[in-house]
Amino acid sequence: MSTHFGDRLIDAIREKNAPVCVGLDPLIERFPKALLQDVGIPLTAAGAVEPDVDPAMCAKAMRAFGQEIIRAVAPHVPVVKINIAFFERYHADGLRAYFDLVRFAREAGMIVIGDVKRADIGHSSTQYAQAHLLDVPGADVAAPDAITVNPYFGFDTIRPFVDIARAEGRGLFVLVQTSNESAAEVQNLVLPDGLKLCEQVGKLVQTWAGGEGLVGRSGYSCVGAVVSPRDLDSTERIRTLMPQCLFLVPGFGAQGRTAAEVAKCFRSDGTGAIVNASRSVIYAHNIAPYCDRCGTDWTRAVEQACKDLVIAIRDVVPH
Amino acid sequence: MSTHFGDRLIDAIREKNAPVCVGLDPLIERFPKALLQDVGIPLTAAGAVEPDVDPAMCAKAMRAFGQEIIRAVAPHVPVVKINIAFFERYHADGLRAYFDLVRFAREAGMIVIGDVKRADIGHSSTQYAQAHLLDVPGADVAAPDAITVNPYFGFDTIRPFVDIARAEGRGLFVLVQTSNESAAEVQNLVLPDGLKLCEQVGKLVQTWAGGEGLVGRSGYSCVGAVVSPRDLDSTERIRTLMPQCLFLVPGFGAQGRTAAEVAKCFRSDGTGAIVNASRSVIYAHNIAPYCDRCGTDWTRAVEQACKDLVIAIRDVVPH
Repeated sequence: MSTHFGDRLIDAIREKNAPVCVGLDPLIERFPKALLQDVGIPLTAAGAVEPDVDPAMCAKAMRAFGQEIIRAVAPHVPVVKINIAFFERYHADGLRAYFDLVRFAREAGMIVIGDVKRADIGHSSTQYAQAHLLDVPGADVAAPDAITVNPYFGFDTIRPFVDIARAEGRGLFVLVQTSNESAAEVQNLVLPDGLKLCEQVGKLVQTWAGGEGLVGRSGYSCVGAVVSPRDLDSTERIRTLMPQCLFLVPGFGAQGRTAAEVAKCFRSDGTGAIVNASRSVIYAHNIAPYCDRCGTDWTRAVEQACKDLVIAIRDVVPH
Repeated sequence: MSTHFGDRLIDAIREKNAPVCVGLDPLIERFPKALLQDVGIPLTAAGAVEPDVDPAMCAKAMRAFGQEIIRAVAPHVPVVKINIAFFERYHADGLRAYFDLVRFAREAGMIVIGDVKRADIGHSSTQYAQAHLLDVPGADVAAPDAITVNPYFGFDTIRPFVDIARAEGRGLFVLVQTSNESAAEVQNLVLPDGLKLCEQVGKLVQTWAGGEGLVGRSGYSCVGAVVSPRDLDSTERIRTLMPQCLFLVPGFGAQGRTAAEVAKCFRSDGTGAIVNASRSVIYAHNIAPYCDRCGTDWTRAVEQACKDLVIAIRDVVPH
């Protein structure tokens, strides 16, 4: 893997005509009963997962669920984002399932974002960067194409990730404006020049992203940003302040952002963003109208929700 | 484990007369040759670790190294901080070694801080909180007494950690002022009221820390903060703004902060902080005068560096 990450992402979005990412946040409590039974997860009489199931068994269920999701969405969207928090809950077994799914998604031709939100001071960030951005063929580990990182420490903690991204054709998405409500407590603090903190962080990230050897032929850097349109004014300003950054846009679907809101994350030429939805797709088997329409094959519900998501996003991308 | 975390920490510091924490950041490249040979790590003719060593083997070396460090320092200091980044480098094998060392240190009577620096939006933070603050007896997982978390998302991402900390007698240290140089790019941004961002974050963390059921009989909350005396003015202000927060103080030793600087992190009664040193203790076998004085038993060098650290810190604590 050595082509520039931003170029690969832009090409993949164009090929599927879908600036869309499906987020894999697997909670076994919400898995289809049929899948849980296939894997052998013990269920109560009411069909709920028994407490204290063996973590290796849970990891097995997550692997099976993830593979079905990836098979269902891969024909329609270019990117899957896998959130490691849900896997860490099962410790070493979960981490193995996470990396197995990264490999599975890459082999299915998808671009994989590891949603790890890591950061630490320099020499510790180097360890995280090696863990999450480097393949280890001898250990059967395939790393994601890109990961999410946290900016609170400033650039010297981001540099180890940038160095590996540049050398290996990988990417980063630095948290700038997140989708949760109380993010405003920190990210909306207003600085004396009138910029909000998230806007100032966006400016900094653009500086980092424009560094030597980081911008591809598409004009985008391999260093992007996580930007939710939680605050629309900020979103417009951030889009202007960060011309070379690709935005990973959370908050659509279950988190309540509308398609018109996420549209603000694109540049006027219709590029520059990829919109993520997680729960509204991967749990579509629980959500009307999908569950009603798709009968017993729960993956049909997921696939239909994914196709509808793509159409909804296509509809609002500027062109 | 259900006594209040802050009370337990204060008691443990008093018992050893040592507001000191040893940080375990294990890099196998710096392990003593004798230990690497004992474990069976392949070495070059020059004594360096061969590239591409099997990760299970590396994890075994980290476990052995960590156990020796814990044995050497447990008589002298109350707390060990284990940085998960160094373990994640070896993926599932590393994560297993991390949790094994957490258990080992707890069984050695130490308070354990898991330096994980996690945070995500609410439902993902819940997963991280379960992974890192809850014992799972069936899976043979012992969680740390406390962990470090990142404040960039605001309180709704911290709440899941707080809820488990309150219920289980565990603790948190929220990143406020970190020790790395470029942290100033973000943390020293000045707000219109004259406070720096890290000071404002400190104020917020104090608000979170003072929440119902969080403050123990010692007067300290189970929600503390990571405060390095990188900027002395800020440090004094943060100490005043956060009266109920215990500070975990990095930056001493290899990172260059002096004892007089870390003294600013204590309250005038000599409580309120615990000073961490990592590389200057755990790699003392590589550092004069320890390596020269301690002959072939590298753990004697570590123990001596730990004892010297305790004396240096005792000397500057206000009393």
